[in-house]
Amino acid sequence: MKARIQAIAFDAYGTLFDVHSVIALCDRKFPGQGTDLSKLWRAKQLEYTWLRSLMGRYEDFWAVTESALVFACRSLSLPCPAETRRDLMESYLHLDTFPEVKSALGKLSQHKLAILSNGSPRMLAAVVESAGLKSAFADVISVDEVKIYKPSPRVYSLASQHLSLADNAIAFVSSNYWDIAGAKSFGFWTCWVNRGHIPEDELGVGPDVTVETLDGLVTVLGETT
Amino acid sequence: MKARIQAIAFDAYGTLFDVHSVIALCDRKFPGQGTDLSKLWRAKQLEYTWLRSLMGRYEDFWAVTESALVFACRSLSLPCPAETRRDLMESYLHLDTFPEVKSALGKLSQHKLAILSNGSPRMLAAVVESAGLKSAFADVISVDEVKIYKPSPRVYSLASQHLSLADNAIAFVSSNYWDIAGAKSFGFWTCWVNRGHIPEDELGVGPDVTVETLDGLVTVLGETT
Repeated sequence: MKARIQAIAFDAYGTLFDVHSVIALCDRKFPGQGTDLSKLWRAKQLEYTWLRSLMGRYEDFWAVTESALVFACRSLSLPCPAETRRDLMESYLHLDTFPEVKSALGKLSQHKLAILSNGSPRMLAAVVESAGLKSAFADVISVDEVKIYKPSPRVYSLASQHLSLADNAIAFVSSNYWDIAGAKSFGFWTCWVNRGHIPEDELGVGPDVTVETLDGLVTVLGETT
Repeated sequence: MKARIQAIAFDAYGTLFDVHSVIALCDRKFPGQGTDLSKLWRAKQLEYTWLRSLMGRYEDFWAVTESALVFACRSLSLPCPAETRRDLMESYLHLDTFPEVKSALGKLSQHKLAILSNGSPRMLAAVVESAGLKSAFADVISVDEVKIYKPSPRVYSLASQHLSLADNAIAFVSSNYWDIAGAKSFGFWTCWVNRGHIPEDELGVGPDVTVETLDGLVTVLGETT
């Protein structure tokens, strides 16, 4: 397998970038309700990507993320004036990476590295720049090109096209089990980064390997020497 | 609008049939954790329909519902032996209707009435029979025919085909806001039954009317005289 893999495509949010700072800001804006808000916000963000994809009513991830925030605040009866909303939304543009990410990407640099994300091109460009990772990636690929969200196979096929590689020469890495299911179903070799020791979903298809952090992926694929 | 509507297609679970008895059984099987289990079970049931639809990996609603139950129990560290699982699953086959449903369907009988549901044909036949509603419906339509779930437009088009009517001659009724969004986006006149006074989702498309129970729909469409 090691010999076959020529490129690695990474999910962004939750996989490379830690959304903890978004949660922390929710808690500063709404003391005591930050956890409830950020959980509902994230759940609705994903739900809206799936629903809009199925309805054929794509809007980009910035718009979907803001809609999800508006709903989550309304649902929890939290007033969310324009300024608060803007601050919460903008926290998505400068997220920290998880601690091991930069060194792990360095150790994997014998492969072509890419991002394949639901994020809009503007969001992805900002967060990659802000984290100082621009030079690490050969390509930053957004679903915006096909106007449908993960786990549609049309999204994963973007990676093969952009990287000009056969599906089975690409490793796909995500912390979202359902994203792994979509990528595996499409034909990629898959690595689930299960940072939180959460249980596997029951989707009939799963990861080739499971690791706790990207360091585990370095061990599996072998370090650049 | 009244003159134009010739048929009414109803969602089943939560709209006509009250899943309260499923929740009650969860609580008997897992005292003190029934609410958490039934909430997570329902959330995962829907999530899996959307994910499988997007991945192109359809399995019928019985299988998806059971997978969701398995995950929900695992996630909450609840042991779920085969017998418990069977009892919980079978509760879906004999649900009560909400109190006003039978009389309201009678008052709407100048229209052709149908069910359009994610449920598998076997599940729907059982629950309709058990509730004594067989004679009320001209058609009971399952997504199983098109092997994709709501809110795909392919599902809603099944109703137009089965009822041999133009899209705008059909009223669609559901307690799920996202189902209303899908039906409205497809082209039906839509009625959201908001029994729980929950907030509207932010999906860019919404119901034509909102009612609290089916009695509200009778008022809007006019009673058979």
